[in-house]
Amino acid sequence: MFVTHLECSRCGATFESEQLINLCRCGAPLLVRYDLEQVKARLARDDLASRAPDLWRYRELLPVRESENIVSLGEGMTPLVRLNRLGAELGLSNLYMKDEGLLPTGSFKARGAAVGVSRAKELGVKAVAMPTNGNAGAAWSAYCARAGIESIVVMPTSAPAIHRTECAVTGAKLYLVDGLISDAGGIVGRAVTQRGYYDVSTLKEPYRIEGKKTMGLEIAEQFAWKLPDVIVYPTGGGVGIIGIHKALEELQEIGWISEKLPRLVAVQAEGCAPIVKAWRQNKPEAEFWPDARTVAFGLTVPKAIGDFIVLRGLYETAGCGVAVSDADILKAVKTIASKEGLFICPEGAATLCAAAQLADDGWLKPDETVLLLNTGCGLKYTETLNAGAPLLKPGDDLPEP
Amino acid sequence: MFVTHLECSRCGATFESEQLINLCRCGAPLLVRYDLEQVKARLARDDLASRAPDLWRYRELLPVRESENIVSLGEGMTPLVRLNRLGAELGLSNLYMKDEGLLPTGSFKARGAAVGVSRAKELGVKAVAMPTNGNAGAAWSAYCARAGIESIVVMPTSAPAIHRTECAVTGAKLYLVDGLISDAGGIVGRAVTQRGYYDVSTLKEPYRIEGKKTMGLEIAEQFAWKLPDVIVYPTGGGVGIIGIHKALEELQEIGWISEKLPRLVAVQAEGCAPIVKAWRQNKPEAEFWPDARTVAFGLTVPKAIGDFIVLRGLYETAGCGVAVSDADILKAVKTIASKEGLFICPEGAATLCAAAQLADDGWLKPDETVLLLNTGCGLKYTETLNAGAPLLKPGDDLPEP
Repeated sequence: MFVTHLECSRCGATFESEQLINLCRCGAPLLVRYDLEQVKARLARDDLASRAPDLWRYRELLPVRESENIVSLGEGMTPLVRLNRLGAELGLSNLYMKDEGLLPTGSFKARGAAVGVSRAKELGVKAVAMPTNGNAGAAWSAYCARAGIESIVVMPTSAPAIHRTECAVTGAKLYLVDGLISDAGGIVGRAVTQRGYYDVSTLKEPYRIEGKKTMGLEIAEQFAWKLPDVIVYPTGGGVGIIGIHKALEELQEIGWISEKLPRLVAVQAEGCAPIVKAWRQNKPEAEFWPDARTVAFGLTVPKAIGDFIVLRGLYETAGCGVAVSDADILKAVKTIASKEGLFICPEGAATLCAAAQLADDGWLKPDETVLLLNTGCGLKYTETLNAGAPLLKPGDDLPEP
Repeated sequence: MFVTHLECSRCGATFESEQLINLCRCGAPLLVRYDLEQVKARLARDDLASRAPDLWRYRELLPVRESENIVSLGEGMTPLVRLNRLGAELGLSNLYMKDEGLLPTGSFKARGAAVGVSRAKELGVKAVAMPTNGNAGAAWSAYCARAGIESIVVMPTSAPAIHRTECAVTGAKLYLVDGLISDAGGIVGRAVTQRGYYDVSTLKEPYRIEGKKTMGLEIAEQFAWKLPDVIVYPTGGGVGIIGIHKALEELQEIGWISEKLPRLVAVQAEGCAPIVKAWRQNKPEAEFWPDARTVAFGLTVPKAIGDFIVLRGLYETAGCGVAVSDADILKAVKTIASKEGLFICPEGAATLCAAAQLADDGWLKPDETVLLLNTGCGLKYTETLNAGAPLLKPGDDLPEP
């Protein structure tokens, strides 16, 4: 393992990495730092070819010491799918989607859970607790089950019911709260203090980002180390976009990619767009978004603890923030399914709406390579879709077309 | 492309492969045959390492001439997951599961659809029609959408509602029938005759098997060309087990694996076990199973058109057939999720019940390598599970454990 220490994302304070730790004294998330000179000396890009197509192929850039501590369901190397038909409609000749719906537990949250749970196991954790809007709870429950770690999950009653089933079937201790994710967070916070559970809320432990980082590593490898011009990411808590940015910076440092980074685009819903608002005002940090509400449930994060890191990523890469409407998102789910065969989640569909806006504006050039990230599979969101069909009797013929 | 011709699975009659064709004159399915000597001369196992981790890495053993006709959503190379905890409980020290739930459209049907639709596109098909219990319809709808081919799908009203959404969202022309899959088949049959759609019902076109075959190719590669002793497969229409067997025979012929094949086990539900019954009676073909009914909806196939090919596979590999109860299947879904973190479909869970029976019988030896196939993701079957959870108010603490 090449981890050297942990570093505060805001004040730069450093911490020893072989301890169980949550946030920095200043309240900001901690980032894992590596001896990248050593990684560069020991590993070449071509070494990857002979490794299994899961995220552990990048183990030199991951924070697990002993391979016996790896808790894996085979996650990683999700498909990169070219969108020719939609690209033509938007006037973009190089449009792609990376489909994170094909991970264990059906969402990108599996990456953070795989690495986070592996590291928690390595550090001796027996029980974790977290609030969740659904997908993260499902992912952490599954990986904890596999690791033999107890998981306590608190979820708003308004989260899609399918997530309850996912947590319950994997044996998590699931509680519902008649309130928001922030209320769930309050309950978890008290339980952590009173009972000594390890708090694995978004960005409150350092290792989830490292799992999400593998999205960026895969993007680089799948594009043969020539990065796309733009990466469009649906942004709730923001860990994905933070992880991708961190991955690309590390790859630069070990010399596997060139200096120019993709412009990062954070997509939010009009009903909850704190980071987009802050970006428009050129602010370093977002404000709490009151009355947050969108069909893209994973984007309902009124104040993300890592918003300032997301914004730093947008500014440093000359990226931007885009807010899209629920109506457009729902339409995009159907468009992507019927034109490209990809049945994805509303959060993922939001990236297409953003790309349409940006192509229209001229912010995206016709021949730029544009990558959309889909974060989850459509199967979790069937309640939002209407699927009427004519009913026949056994002896009937099909009605006339 | 190395395809030479099509060959009847029953009478051995041969057919030219560049034509649109369904069954043999004798009513049996057709199999695709290749010039395996040429494949052997042109391709080495080590050539695969540099190819993308999708099923098209085996293109020399697939029936698509021009790569521009490939219709892909990035399907293939699904995880091989070791089941240490369940293995210990069953007294099996080398128990594995291959998780086909992580394919596009959430089931193993994506393999058959990817190859079947690609070949249909290559042969100029404009519209396909099929009856379905759900997963196949979802998969073919998605790949047809991507190919720009019209799809007509007829589904029993009793199939899980989620499949309707999947078909509808990808733009299939979906019809429900108040009857069984056989009634849906009747409606499709008449529409095919009257309107010239290409009939892509199970085994009625030759290319779906070729897609399923890639499961066998991946198993061989993932086990480093040293095959497991036993492969346990949930068997409805039987295309998967036929495909795996065909893959292994072809790999033998090109010299990539040794002579000994895994014993193939066909798992069915007690409420619909025609192939198991035929195997017990040592018969070459199954009889229609009246009143077919099981929670594992994909296993509700009372008479499979390729049953004699499945049975041939069981006899030739010294395999067997096992029937398991619905109660055990539902229990196994929860056991696999809570002990290994895999939330899978009832059909996949049935393989664990079968392995438990066979380990108990002594048919499986403790140190044999046993591979269970999961055919779909659990997200499609949440209705069969109960997920109660305590309800809290925002200011509450967690109840005492």
